[in-house]
Amino acid sequence: MIKIAVLGGSGYTALELLKILLRHPQVEIVAVTSRQSETPAVAELHPSLFARINLQCQPFDADRLVAAGIQFVFGCLPHGVSMATLPSLLDRGIRVIDLSADYRLRDANVYAQWYRESHTDLAYLAQAVYGLPEIYGEEISTAQLVANPGCYPQTAILGLAPLVAGNYIELDSIIIDSKSGVSGAGRTPQLTFHFPECNESVAAYNVGRHRHTPEIEQVLSEIAAQPVAVIFTPHLIPMDRGIFSTIYCRPNRSFSEGRLLDLYRDYYTKEPFVRVVPHLPSTKHCTGTNFLDITLRIVRDTIVVLVCEDNLFRGASGVAVQNFNRMYGFNQNTGLI
Amino acid sequence: MIKIAVLGGSGYTALELLKILLRHPQVEIVAVTSRQSETPAVAELHPSLFARINLQCQPFDADRLVAAGIQFVFGCLPHGVSMATLPSLLDRGIRVIDLSADYRLRDANVYAQWYRESHTDLAYLAQAVYGLPEIYGEEISTAQLVANPGCYPQTAILGLAPLVAGNYIELDSIIIDSKSGVSGAGRTPQLTFHFPECNESVAAYNVGRHRHTPEIEQVLSEIAAQPVAVIFTPHLIPMDRGIFSTIYCRPNRSFSEGRLLDLYRDYYTKEPFVRVVPHLPSTKHCTGTNFLDITLRIVRDTIVVLVCEDNLFRGASGVAVQNFNRMYGFNQNTGLI
Amino acid sequence: MIKIAVLGGSGYTALELLKILLRHPQVEIVAVTSRQSETPAVAELHPSLFARINLQCQPFDADRLVAAGIQFVFGCLPHGVSMATLPSLLDRGIRVIDLSADYRLRDANVYAQWYRESHTDLAYLAQAVYGLPEIYGEEISTAQLVANPGCYPQTAILGLAPLVAGNYIELDSIIIDSKSGVSGAGRTPQLTFHFPECNESVAAYNVGRHRHTPEIEQVLSEIAAQPVAVIFTPHLIPMDRGIFSTIYCRPNRSFSEGRLLDLYRDYYTKEPFVRVVPHLPSTKHCTGTNFLDITLRIVRDTIVVLVCEDNLFRGASGVAVQNFNRMYGFNQNTGLI
Amino acid sequence: MIKIAVLGGSGYTALELLKILLRHPQVEIVAVTSRQSETPAVAELHPSLFARINLQCQPFDADRLVAAGIQFVFGCLPHGVSMATLPSLLDRGIRVIDLSADYRLRDANVYAQWYRESHTDLAYLAQAVYGLPEIYGEEISTAQLVANPGCYPQTAILGLAPLVAGNYIELDSIIIDSKSGVSGAGRTPQLTFHFPECNESVAAYNVGRHRHTPEIEQVLSEIAAQPVAVIFTPHLIPMDRGIFSTIYCRPNRSFSEGRLLDLYRDYYTKEPFVRVVPHLPSTKHCTGTNFLDITLRIVRDTIVVLVCEDNLFRGASGVAVQNFNRMYGFNQNTGLI
Repeated sequence: MIKIAVLGGSGYTALELLKILLRHPQVEIVAVTSRQSETPAVAELHPSLFARINLQCQPFDADRLVAAGIQFVFGCLPHGVSMATLPSLLDRGIRVIDLSADYRLRDANVYAQWYRESHTDLAYLAQAVYGLPEIYGEEISTAQLVANPGCYPQTAILGLAPLVAGNYIELDSIIIDSKSGVSGAGRTPQLTFHFPECNESVAAYNVGRHRHTPEIEQVLSEIAAQPVAVIFTPHLIPMDRGIFSTIYCRPNRSFSEGRLLDLYRDYYTKEPFVRVVPHLPSTKHCTGTNFLDITLRIVRDTIVVLVCEDNLFRGASGVAVQNFNRMYGFNQNTGLI
Repeated sequence: MIKIAVLGGSGYTALELLKILLRHPQVEIVAVTSRQSETPAVAELHPSLFARINLQCQPFDADRLVAAGIQFVFGCLPHGVSMATLPSLLDRGIRVIDLSADYRLRDANVYAQWYRESHTDLAYLAQAVYGLPEIYGEEISTAQLVANPGCYPQTAILGLAPLVAGNYIELDSIIIDSKSGVSGAGRTPQLTFHFPECNESVAAYNVGRHRHTPEIEQVLSEIAAQPVAVIFTPHLIPMDRGIFSTIYCRPNRSFSEGRLLDLYRDYYTKEPFVRVVPHLPSTKHCTGTNFLDITLRIVRDTIVVLVCEDNLFRGASGVAVQNFNRMYGFNQNTGLI
Repeated sequence: MIKIAVLGGSGYTALELLKILLRHPQVEIVAVTSRQSETPAVAELHPSLFARINLQCQPFDADRLVAAGIQFVFGCLPHGVSMATLPSLLDRGIRVIDLSADYRLRDANVYAQWYRESHTDLAYLAQAVYGLPEIYGEEISTAQLVANPGCYPQTAILGLAPLVAGNYIELDSIIIDSKSGVSGAGRTPQLTFHFPECNESVAAYNVGRHRHTPEIEQVLSEIAAQPVAVIFTPHLIPMDRGIFSTIYCRPNRSFSEGRLLDLYRDYYTKEPFVRVVPHLPSTKHCTGTNFLDITLRIVRDTIVVLVCEDNLFRGASGVAVQNFNRMYGFNQNTGLI
Repeated sequence: MIKIAVLGGSGYTALELLKILLRHPQVEIVAVTSRQSETPAVAELHPSLFARINLQCQPFDADRLVAAGIQFVFGCLPHGVSMATLPSLLDRGIRVIDLSADYRLRDANVYAQWYRESHTDLAYLAQAVYGLPEIYGEEISTAQLVANPGCYPQTAILGLAPLVAGNYIELDSIIIDSKSGVSGAGRTPQLTFHFPECNESVAAYNVGRHRHTPEIEQVLSEIAAQPVAVIFTPHLIPMDRGIFSTIYCRPNRSFSEGRLLDLYRDYYTKEPFVRVVPHLPSTKHCTGTNFLDITLRIVRDTIVVLVCEDNLFRGASGVAVQNFNRMYGFNQNTGLI
């Protein structure tokens, strides 16, 4: 049993992660930390865990975690806090999956530009591996620090990777129109996410300014081996969870839909959690699972890629456990089916 | 044209009220006040009013309102603030409908007990008329200060009035199980009303402690001419608006359902906004209207009264305009159809 | 008072229309027809109209409608049925607004291709005016037959008209990604629209095959005076009503966002129901109104137009009444505020 | 590995059951039957199972199931069909859990009265065990045929059992006001469950006539050892899943809330899936789990019991697997955590 700690236990990704880990046969949850001044029982923060987990939250203390025998840490802290906290654990040799954005962007200048603060941990940033297992599976296996990917970027990157890798599309034509459930905005109450404001309504937000943009561009650029810029528009949908991305791009040669589907099936043939489907998927098909469903259509010579996932499961905590499984050499499925 | 002001313009009841008043042929909206330090345009607080109302919010100032020729004021302030604010207008002879709870309970001790603060305006409290037009229509016509009723109490009181007035039920048997949309909780963000918390969920709240309880009991006691105590349980439903109250009571004689429906039709025969219906109503039948739908069933010798309304329209701002119409001798329908 | 009839009274557009017309000061609703074998009271089909309309549905009979003095007809029939029904009224000199798709496409071949049946009324098709008042206002005023526009096309056309009319964009670059509430699918129960199927889910549908595509292309082509083809992807959103269209196109010159907003404000300066807004709109801002909100952003040299409306009100029945007002020379606002 | 078949694979309880069984370490799903003329892949009926289950639906054929080595059957057939189908399997010695209502009511006359058809399998009806494991755990262990309980009755029975068993309440005072998500109505499209009809609305249905009434009364009567009649009012809530029951009854002695909670904790002390909680529960706390949460309050001398569960998981398929585990002597938790 691997002794693990979850840092920042009060939010939705921590809750989702705890639920998954409670099922994982190789894991013992030993500590949950919280930055709140009080240290309530975890089940008080999350009543759905009543009678399922018997731990009090504790303040973060690296020495105390080491003394408790913690071998592995999942960080669910906000960006900024994460890079101020994790080095103390990494220095002590603990392996970490960070669910924040702090170690996702390789270039600290890009981080500073989009997150409006300087990166304060260039050393570990240089070692961090971007935790998208279908793309960086090898590097993840041996990493000490994995930067778990953003929810939107997974749909965009996995939706485009086969086309970009094969050099099949015009790279300046990519438009990603994404729709997300409200849990993606986190658990802090704000007017925008107050029920009577966002229920029965749909709206775009952060148009041209969403922080997942550079993350998408970084990985697609690596796959393409040349700079890729994308237009990314996120929308808020009145539902708890689910992301649906509709991606438009122009092919540089002629394709049939069947050929495209085959190309995707081949690309993901060994991946248990990417389902290339012939039908038009709905986010509900993926709810509560680590699956990401993709299909493709051709409309007036433009390729339309349709991708969906559960933003909390596959989009955050599920893929974190998938990464964890890779880091320990477990079957990728462990605890995820 | 009657020049009116709306105090406390940032919440949902103010928004609903402004929408109704914009349609009212006898009203000119001259001022909207806000307690916020900034004084944004009303349409900035409420983007749905963009291009429909051209006013900046202003801080409350009784002299300034009088100087602007205000003849009538709708108060949408929180309880406590309301009784600290309205006397300055009432003293200047302005007529007022107060949508807060401050002037609803005749007995200041009951107010203190349920609202946990002392009532500070006993003088106007003594003059205030409870603004349920189907019960206190005469008094409302000539009142200077009308205490607009709570959303839940309207369903409970109008759902029971014919039975209580006719002395047809055992008064110690009343159970009111109510279900409300989330807008009833107001516009201030809180974890309980954060979309991913209350969406896809139902829960009871304030069991045995909801502040609408004494309001229901006060009016039913007046109708019965003897003390009436009720059990009232509110529930939060994942929808924007609508209240559904399921009321249980034991008759003291034998009734058929047809007889009960006739009795209710007779009682409300002159009331344009109470619809006694034969079918089981849904809150959606009343959404966006000032109607309150009632039907009755008999189950194992217990009477089950089923009542629904739109909590923001009929439950707050619509009935306020109905009261306003009565106060000016307009047709009760004006601006409400 | 103009005596009107509504044909096909059982669906959502008929219900919305009846609610609007009940407020319209120049209209008397004289007849509602239904194709069902039984002829229930209108209020039985639509319990929200209980006590508001006192009519039984009747089977369609042109002579009977004429005998009843009907001067104007709103057709809410399904496509196919509409073109089989309306000529008998038009032949008798009655003016008609048809809310179906039957008279929207000028080219009967295009109709046959997308609707998979031949057009059977070429004569009136040749006379029909496309009922988008901001584009065809003059022709609508004098038309006998107005083809009320589709819900999606209004957002797409009005979202693009200023750019297309000014020849500011590359016409082969238009992508329209639309999101609609479920009421747009009508009132006939189907698995796709069964609550537990579409609630808490988002999905694209009819990708590349939606019948509103040729309607959008026809009008944009007329504005451009050259053929325009678009990529249009509709999505189903778990909410009752509202359409949000995110439109992408490449400008053929350099624009600032401020310049674009000015250009749109100028174009729509006389239009009471198009609001060019600086903020990012939400569909909820338009719910229950005839307004259509538009803003624009520039992202990596691509113009992103964001448009929203209420699909049942502005998208169908509200614009029908706006057209009706134009046909009778009433203020466009009549009954719509 | 126990070879199992699921009969009637197209609905929501079958889908939920298949998802649970796919995780169960002792089960192999060998056959899924469907009454439809076509025999699609299971994953076609339920796209969420794509790549997770590789079976075609097959028509029901008892011999074929026996030949395939089926040892256990879960019946997800409609009532009426179930009692016409299951005897052929029971006769062949197969053990069965029937999720329909056919074998729940011991008295065939009561069945005939509420279901409006005669019971056609009195022999197995006499042997069937009512599958509420917290009440009939012993009998379930050795049963050949278990009648899986209804979703509402579980909340009502487990919410009242400690009070009824201890003879603490007046048995003629019980009122059960229940609120359910729409999935409880099944997967067959009907106007009532069409998204735009039931979304943003709440309504009571089948008042005094819901078929779960006799089921509740039967079990409470057995616990009380005297006849118990209840008033049961179900309501439809705009959410996918979840049941919240608010139960009112009068105690025949004085209780404190603390004493009541202790009494419930004692009663359920060995039950892993009943959580007696001090806080007011929400259905969301139980979503996707086999837990049933209960708390109690005293309001004006009336006991209010508040109970919630996931209607598809605990309310149907989860408790079926709990029963299955008991029938095979597995830990009750197996596959359910």
